[in-house]
Amino acid sequence: MVGIDPGAKKLRVRDLEGGKETLEPYDRLIIASGAKPRPLDLPGSNLSNIFRLKFLEEAIRLKKFLDTEKPARAVSIGAGFIALEMAEAFQARGIANTILHNDVLPGGRLEPELQELIARELQSQGVEFFPRVEARAFREAPRGRAAELLTGQGVFTGNLFLISTGVVPEVKLAEDAGVTLGPTGAIAVNERQETNLPGVFAAGDCCEVRHRISGRPVYLPLGDVANKQGWVAGENAAGGKVTYPGVLGSAQFKCFDLEIGQTGLGVKEAESLGFSVFAPVIEDSSRTRIYPGNRPILVKLIIDRKSHVLLGAQIAGKDGAALRINTLAVAVYKKMTVEELAELDFAYAPPFSPAIDPILVAARAAEKELAGKKD
Amino acid sequence: MVGIDPGAKKLRVRDLEGGKETLEPYDRLIIASGAKPRPLDLPGSNLSNIFRLKFLEEAIRLKKFLDTEKPARAVSIGAGFIALEMAEAFQARGIANTILHNDVLPGGRLEPELQELIARELQSQGVEFFPRVEARAFREAPRGRAAELLTGQGVFTGNLFLISTGVVPEVKLAEDAGVTLGPTGAIAVNERQETNLPGVFAAGDCCEVRHRISGRPVYLPLGDVANKQGWVAGENAAGGKVTYPGVLGSAQFKCFDLEIGQTGLGVKEAESLGFSVFAPVIEDSSRTRIYPGNRPILVKLIIDRKSHVLLGAQIAGKDGAALRINTLAVAVYKKMTVEELAELDFAYAPPFSPAIDPILVAARAAEKELAGKKD
Repeated sequence: MVGIDPGAKKLRVRDLEGGKETLEPYDRLIIASGAKPRPLDLPGSNLSNIFRLKFLEEAIRLKKFLDTEKPARAVSIGAGFIALEMAEAFQARGIANTILHNDVLPGGRLEPELQELIARELQSQGVEFFPRVEARAFREAPRGRAAELLTGQGVFTGNLFLISTGVVPEVKLAEDAGVTLGPTGAIAVNERQETNLPGVFAAGDCCEVRHRISGRPVYLPLGDVANKQGWVAGENAAGGKVTYPGVLGSAQFKCFDLEIGQTGLGVKEAESLGFSVFAPVIEDSSRTRIYPGNRPILVKLIIDRKSHVLLGAQIAGKDGAALRINTLAVAVYKKMTVEELAELDFAYAPPFSPAIDPILVAARAAEKELAGKKD
Repeated sequence: MVGIDPGAKKLRVRDLEGGKETLEPYDRLIIASGAKPRPLDLPGSNLSNIFRLKFLEEAIRLKKFLDTEKPARAVSIGAGFIALEMAEAFQARGIANTILHNDVLPGGRLEPELQELIARELQSQGVEFFPRVEARAFREAPRGRAAELLTGQGVFTGNLFLISTGVVPEVKLAEDAGVTLGPTGAIAVNERQETNLPGVFAAGDCCEVRHRISGRPVYLPLGDVANKQGWVAGENAAGGKVTYPGVLGSAQFKCFDLEIGQTGLGVKEAESLGFSVFAPVIEDSSRTRIYPGNRPILVKLIIDRKSHVLLGAQIAGKDGAALRINTLAVAVYKKMTVEELAELDFAYAPPFSPAIDPILVAARAAEKELAGKKD
């Protein structure tokens, strides 16, 4: 498809082989054009051992490269979910691994306490992490099948480079057709996944989604969000009446043995929305201390100091941390106060939890401190 | 301690060595007399290879017995948490294992769909399970260091027997002092853990607890409940003002590889409280289907057909089932409808969940069916 004529309700479609263009009518249209890698057009980016991982073709090319070239060192630019997951994949294949990041700590939009755990996990797994690296240009290495990356902090050499600096929405087709973009640069949609054009819907990584706490549109290209938006767009395009109420920003990921979960707002997000934030951090254990497999677990709560309402939470640890976040996703959704949170009745058995779950420990500590400060 | 004189606010204390009795004054008193095994006084129960597991001394005696006698077969009477956990412990020591139950399926107060999974797990682990067995009497076996249990269904032989038919509250001391017992036979307490006697509190397995959904007192001798009651009783006895709002009936346990979690009411409990119950069961997968470690997971929701409010839930599976129950414990606490549940924003990553979490799959299926039945 090469164009949309929303007035005539027709698509301009180009034959992939002959190149001939035809017009195809539509009654309702769903734009699901996805996302593309954030542009990072460094000189030398066309070298054959430089990869991005947004499209299937690129993954196939990378896999073939790993099999045939047997690279000794992979260098990733960026330290978000993809770079961290790929670090594990590279290590599993015995490929030495360097991560270069333009910020201080790895782990995207997480709180610094969790980012530090990720940095420690990378170190313990033998992954080199370099903060505050400003990438400037690639060039072929003088010898061997390698490339070099020139940066503000010196030259890094690798047999393959992975550019994983995030994605941006693919909106060209939509924009050309007169579809309105939102403040994030992605397609603006309402709760029914409708764009500004009659009969034209959008879903997935090409469009925005409403954040339920702030009420504002955000760009959050995640698989479950895309899945739900697609369902709502499809149902409505077929004549149904369903809505997608938006996101809390719940996400989870795995970095080697470390599990990370997050929901709701982070401290900075909450402050930027005008909240006075109280954000206690506790460390406890994932199971009864005598039970084998027990590991430390970190819980950070993001609380509105005025109402005591839970605005967000993040959990990290090596045993059951990721699954625990959904419990707090419900609490954030229901705008629960820490006082309510502290009186929840959770299940308890030594293989799964201490008698008082780490979430309750965090809630009680928060409750106590907030009460003390009132006096 | 051998007695309480609540009028004089004194305790009758007997010297464990000399047997001399003295009176000790108290300002406030906390009764934490715990529970004792439910009486099952079969003839022959005093044989040395018959065990109960309520007290530490008995656990030590059992462990010594296992080490010195190296029993070949253990037979458990009862099929609740303790019998099932002990089955795993016996198997780990290479001891063949038989469970005799006076009901049809193992697993206490769980829904039948989950009980069936437990029965299947026992079978796959090589544990013999006999339903509807009425135990009558023990006797020494004719040869070998074994005993026999005569039942309505034949004779069972084992080198050791474990009686795990539950516990009842230990209330003698309290009752003798005039403390009021509740309808369950355990000590009646209010939200501050106060008994009917001024300055006398009770906490733990000796007392009742309020069920938050029914508002009725229940007897639920669980570790986390006892822990929280003890905290509330202690705080209030020391002059504080805290309350324990009660339980939802959340619990979890592990039976070999199978994890079980439950919260809120079961179908029968809900029906006995007058609810018209809708209780759909779904089976889904614990992780994205392509991700290694993915296992089936069963979710049963107990819903009030009239209000669509979630009254309870039970989850079973071999990967992350137990931890998921707390998510639904929050939903039950907040009296969420299935419509609200279906629009929750959970975290998603392939190692931990499918794009649409099994809880959301269950909620959506329930929502759809309830909507269809309205038409």
